[in-house]
Amino acid sequence: MGDSRCYWITGLPAAGKTTLAMALNVSLKQGGVATALLDGDELRKGLCADLGLTNADRSENIRRAGEVARLMVDAGLTVVCAFVSPFEKDRQRVRGLFTPGQFTEVYLSTSLQECARRDPKHLYERAKAGALTGLTGWDSPYEAPAHPDFTFDTQCTSTEQMVGVLLQSIQATAGA
Amino acid sequence: MGDSRCYWITGLPAAGKTTLAMALNVSLKQGGVATALLDGDELRKGLCADLGLTNADRSENIRRAGEVARLMVDAGLTVVCAFVSPFEKDRQRVRGLFTPGQFTEVYLSTSLQECARRDPKHLYERAKAGALTGLTGWDSPYEAPAHPDFTFDTQCTSTEQMVGVLLQSIQATAGA
Repeated sequence: MGDSRCYWITGLPAAGKTTLAMALNVSLKQGGVATALLDGDELRKGLCADLGLTNADRSENIRRAGEVARLMVDAGLTVVCAFVSPFEKDRQRVRGLFTPGQFTEVYLSTSLQECARRDPKHLYERAKAGALTGLTGWDSPYEAPAHPDFTFDTQCTSTEQMVGVLLQSIQATAGA
Repeated sequence: MGDSRCYWITGLPAAGKTTLAMALNVSLKQGGVATALLDGDELRKGLCADLGLTNADRSENIRRAGEVARLMVDAGLTVVCAFVSPFEKDRQRVRGLFTPGQFTEVYLSTSLQECARRDPKHLYERAKAGALTGLTGWDSPYEAPAHPDFTFDTQCTSTEQMVGVLLQSIQATAGA
């Protein structure tokens, strides 16, 4: 229980956040860790269904996600969070809810070009066509983390490799 | 994991909600159940710190608490919630987030007179003196549950008895 922690995965839409979060979640569970997965798209269907895409609402979305992650870590869960979370101050505020070492910020630095090429939800396609506004990375800002714990470019690193690095880092910390 | 569930304890301020929640939480943990405790006062320091005491804010407070409980139950935790939650429609909305049998509404029917006599947080004292407005049961409405799963008057039933009844009911359900 004392080892419960929060992984916070940030990056552009289609950077691979949910894919990494799901794989990390599965590996943690296989290792006997009690986990929860918090995903931006999912949270906006429930807890944050009242919020829009203004900067203030994006900040509130991340504030709530962080508070829920904090409550879950308090309850002994290791929480894997996948949120675009475009603003540095919002991510830093979430980090501040945890003790040092309990929060791991993972930045997926996948380029805009690659995210727009993948585009599984057709967001970039719609933005290009003018049918969608406020898409992070396209016409809404994304502030790259200043001091992430890990940075991965998913064009160079496989999901398995990322999960391996993240799990190994925890084992190293636990053994220290 | 499949047996994770939500206990929702409602009643007037000072009815004994937190006392029962903490005792139930301890007993569940002793039985090997992974649990979380969600308390109204605590949530208002974090997730719901932006909310006041208007009827709309009280409803939003309960909506968020219910969504967090739902996420926690999804993650395999049994969640014990202690909230005044004065409005029937808000409690019913929370119930609707769960499958039948997964949500147990516990109504502490402790009388206003007894709550005002206990008054551990001096809320009723301040309300009587005109220093506090909007106190549920005093000058803000409390709608008693129409169909609670359990009703206890804490003047007649000890905490141990209530916990026993609640745990026994789950064992009976599990064995059915």
